[in-house]
Amino acid sequence: MKKKSLPLSEVYRLLEPGPVVLVSTHYKGIEDVMTMSWHTMLDFEPPLIGCVISNRDYTFNLIKSSKECVINIPTVDLLDMVVNCGNTTGETIDKFKKFKITKKESSQVRAPLLDECYANLECKVIDTKLVNKYNFFVLEVVKAWIDPKMKKAKTLHHRGKGIFMIAGEEIRSRSKMK
Amino acid sequence: MKKKSLPLSEVYRLLEPGPVVLVSTHYKGIEDVMTMSWHTMLDFEPPLIGCVISNRDYTFNLIKSSKECVINIPTVDLLDMVVNCGNTTGETIDKFKKFKITKKESSQVRAPLLDECYANLECKVIDTKLVNKYNFFVLEVVKAWIDPKMKKAKTLHHRGKGIFMIAGEEIRSRSKMK
Repeated sequence: MKKKSLPLSEVYRLLEPGPVVLVSTHYKGIEDVMTMSWHTMLDFEPPLIGCVISNRDYTFNLIKSSKECVINIPTVDLLDMVVNCGNTTGETIDKFKKFKITKKESSQVRAPLLDECYANLECKVIDTKLVNKYNFFVLEVVKAWIDPKMKKAKTLHHRGKGIFMIAGEEIRSRSKMK
Repeated sequence: MKKKSLPLSEVYRLLEPGPVVLVSTHYKGIEDVMTMSWHTMLDFEPPLIGCVISNRDYTFNLIKSSKECVINIPTVDLLDMVVNCGNTTGETIDKFKKFKITKKESSQVRAPLLDECYANLECKVIDTKLVNKYNFFVLEVVKAWIDPKMKKAKTLHHRGKGIFMIAGEEIRSRSKMK
């Protein structure tokens, strides 16, 4: 997939609607990917993201040690990848091999980009003050990529219990949100 | 609107997909409501929510002082209410009167419920450690209400610049997300 660089000021438009994402990590030769829905924008530019990665997840120590990750945004055609990555642990399997996920090199971090996802956000961990209490990491997006052919991405939005809402029609309000 | 109590363990299913919400507050007789999209679940039960309320918003001091709010979830028919509450400030107008919003009494907090919204989450602020740096409040949902007639709520998901995605079809993965 040929992606172009996305201005950092546009990143919030991808994450604010609440898509499920895939978080990829790298630490000392070990790589993993997990499914995540608990994230929020914290600031526009530089784009800051807050997200919950449980200390029961294999990814937890990888991101805590490397202080880096990539947030990859999948569309509905990747439903199986999303659920498979959510239901398995990198402790016992290599999810990239097992689920045939294509890794690409990132430009600013060592964690890989997932090529199948239409957008990828390279992130650095910048604040861990709430990690002990809530498993809450503060990330700064340092580089963003998007598939220029993707206009209205059919993202997945988890409603619990294996049910996902697929992004529907768009509506424009008469006045812009300030 | 006749609402029923929703078990607290089900709250994450409403917020995880990323809907825009309306936050109502009350402090010493002053009430306000604002539009918000920057929120995430932090824990299942009791349901904890993290959210960003800017210190430029009139709501900021009301929630910081009262340590309470209600998170109200609107559907697409309330688009005008969502945009109007997002584009005005309680400093100069009473948004409830101006936009004809129906207030109802909450059971656990003094902030009002917005009756037009299909779900209402009564919340207490339980952690303000990241307020100074990121305007990030940690809330605990102490009571939740839902319209029992609402099955697949057509929630709004902000994509920036006044464009909203409307919640689309649902899809069930072959295996449940664990």
